[in-house]
Amino acid sequence: MQAKVTIGFKAGVLDPEARAIQRSLQGLGFAEVEGLRKYKVIELDLAMTDRDAAIARARDMCEKLLANPVIESYTIDLVD
Amino acid sequence: MQAKVTIGFKAGVLDPEARAIQRSLQGLGFAEVEGLRKYKVIELDLAMTDRDAAIARARDMCEKLLANPVIESYTIDLVD
Repeated sequence: MQAKVTIGFKAGVLDPEARAIQRSLQGLGFAEVEGLRKYKVIELDLAMTDRDAAIARARDMCEKLLANPVIESYTIDLVD
Repeated sequence: MQAKVTIGFKAGVLDPEARAIQRSLQGLGFAEVEGLRKYKVIELDLAMTDRDAAIARARDMCEKLLANPVIESYTIDLVD
């Protein structure tokens, strides 16, 4: 089973990298870029068949390693 | 209009960060993780209305700043 974890900053948390990318784009002439957000996506191949268990395990991975729960939020989608 | 750019390593290119994350997960007891891929997603708010032009501009941004065309590939999806 495949799980897709999307991790981004919580609303209200400044993302300095996204800000820098937007400024660089504008400096390169892409003035039409009015906003920019950046996410990480991690696709996990899981040797599991139970959907509820897979989501619970992926959530556990987020809390323990993949995300920083202080400033980041995450969503988990099962692909299979 | 919103464009979603997904950037990942080309097939066959080793992603050392993904490898390190997978090993860390296994070290934490998540032995069910058989594979792991990592992507960047950049959401762009574009002050444009023409879809073809928006895709062309987003592609231009990828080639000039967002992606490394030597080792990365990207896809562009329009959200609106």
